[in-house]
Amino acid sequence: MISFFFSAEELKLLRKFLPNNFDFFELFEKQVGYAVDAASTFRTIAETGILTENLYNKIQSLEHQGDEITHTIINELNKTFITPFDREDIYNLAKELDDVIDMFNTITNRMRVYKISGVNPILVEFASVIQDSVKTVQSAIVCLRNVKQHGSIMDSCVEINRLENVGDTMRDKALGELFDKEKDPIAIIKWKEIYTDAETILDICEDVAHIIETILVKQA
Amino acid sequence: MISFFFSAEELKLLRKFLPNNFDFFELFEKQVGYAVDAASTFRTIAETGILTENLYNKIQSLEHQGDEITHTIINELNKTFITPFDREDIYNLAKELDDVIDMFNTITNRMRVYKISGVNPILVEFASVIQDSVKTVQSAIVCLRNVKQHGSIMDSCVEINRLENVGDTMRDKALGELFDKEKDPIAIIKWKEIYTDAETILDICEDVAHIIETILVKQA
Amino acid sequence: MISFFFSAEELKLLRKFLPNNFDFFELFEKQVGYAVDAASTFRTIAETGILTENLYNKIQSLEHQGDEITHTIINELNKTFITPFDREDIYNLAKELDDVIDMFNTITNRMRVYKISGVNPILVEFASVIQDSVKTVQSAIVCLRNVKQHGSIMDSCVEINRLENVGDTMRDKALGELFDKEKDPIAIIKWKEIYTDAETILDICEDVAHIIETILVKQA
Repeated sequence: MISFFFSAEELKLLRKFLPNNFDFFELFEKQVGYAVDAASTFRTIAETGILTENLYNKIQSLEHQGDEITHTIINELNKTFITPFDREDIYNLAKELDDVIDMFNTITNRMRVYKISGVNPILVEFASVIQDSVKTVQSAIVCLRNVKQHGSIMDSCVEINRLENVGDTMRDKALGELFDKEKDPIAIIKWKEIYTDAETILDICEDVAHIIETILVKQA
Repeated sequence: MISFFFSAEELKLLRKFLPNNFDFFELFEKQVGYAVDAASTFRTIAETGILTENLYNKIQSLEHQGDEITHTIINELNKTFITPFDREDIYNLAKELDDVIDMFNTITNRMRVYKISGVNPILVEFASVIQDSVKTVQSAIVCLRNVKQHGSIMDSCVEINRLENVGDTMRDKALGELFDKEKDPIAIIKWKEIYTDAETILDICEDVAHIIETILVKQA
Repeated sequence: MISFFFSAEELKLLRKFLPNNFDFFELFEKQVGYAVDAASTFRTIAETGILTENLYNKIQSLEHQGDEITHTIINELNKTFITPFDREDIYNLAKELDDVIDMFNTITNRMRVYKISGVNPILVEFASVIQDSVKTVQSAIVCLRNVKQHGSIMDSCVEINRLENVGDTMRDKALGELFDKEKDPIAIIKWKEIYTDAETILDICEDVAHIIETILVKQA
């Protein structure tokens, strides 16, 4: 029995140095799964033009589940000595994926507070690009476990960057038209923020891609 | 005399490895004290509905004192080898507490620029919740020195999180009413930002609570 | 031949520990050079009151070049073991200088989307203060290579801080006048954001100065 030779304190210290069977990859896959669910829910909201109580609660619930898993990842990180990649990258990845999920809550909540209803074709287009981006983030995360899939992870990162550029152009076009055509300043205030939120989701996905690229560079 | 055996350079190096009597806890207590003063000043401004030159200068002066102490903490951190908890947590805690104080300056300055006057019951309510949150942050910081007070620190963090949720609901209700009832778009622009600033103070208090939780997890 | 004694893997590992001839200072000088070009282009836009396609493309192109060099710095950092100063400070400095360049793109793009034209004396004044600040950042970066220039670097940091305060006052005055005199809420929405963006550039320059101060403290 190892406990004959080590004190409780020493064992605690020792455990920190041993590889544990804690699976960070599994947690990240679960976390990005919530983001994908949120993206799909948000697309339904945009396409139906009705923010039902049910859909709103779905987003809220995903945000809570996201908070919990982020908390779990960071707590495990603080207790684990040997990690599959740099601790700060694990920390940043968890935080940034959490921000993706949070932004779906932010935009949905804003639409509720502003009593937005009806189908807006620009928002529908945004929701589709956002879903593509979040799904591509998921592809990259799922491949992280296997270093050999380096090439396909890089392809995902390039695609996420491309979609962020698409989003920039969409937002600029949307805002340009809004200021050109809309005469009601209150409607301008509302939609300006919703378009900006939508583009911010794509920005955060790009931030995730940058962190993933950093992880790959360090493993090269 | 130790200086007979070591060169000046070696002594300088050695000193970095020795525990110094620099008291980070005391600095954090001082820093959070400025935040508590700012919260109380802000509450007076909200309750009286008059942003006097005196109260405005008080906030400005607290912000300057906050900057100075943050600077001191970070400089000491960069010169100290052995710290009471992880250097990055000390850094983040100092930065985040500084952000709390800064936000009181931001919101007060905005009220001044927008020439806001008169008592707004929603802002009064916000100021009270904000003061509760900042005082709870203070309770947590004061207990940090003593690891045995783990339980009461965790209670404070739970309470700070709860107050942030209260703030979210207050902001959403406030914005909903603003867009429903206010017909002047310029008034909407002004109050939308002030309510958002108020809620942001509670967000930053929650960020402080997260850092404190991280410190506790690492010490467990 | 060293390769007789070490395997390829060992050589790769060894190289990480050897000082390499990678010149971070040169990259930072190049990066801040793009920021200076962007500041000068922005000043031309403000002073002429015409955002020509040519000037807009210039800013866009500087932003792309800025992205590339930031990417290069971070990749080199992740591959280099011995760095001229703390890795996190190199990382933060690269990120923050990139943010300076990005903000010129943000403000210029906003002016384009909002179809802003004509000379606005307040914006001209902002552009001049911004150019002063970015040039002062350049002076500090260029001196970083030589620790003996400690004094002149500190002078630059003090000046950058001073210019940020000047910017705060300018923004408050600009916003105060905007809300006092402008009756069109849509014009208020537009200019409020442009003045805020302009001041943000000075904020980010101040963040750069703080990172430089941190580097100096650690080398002291």
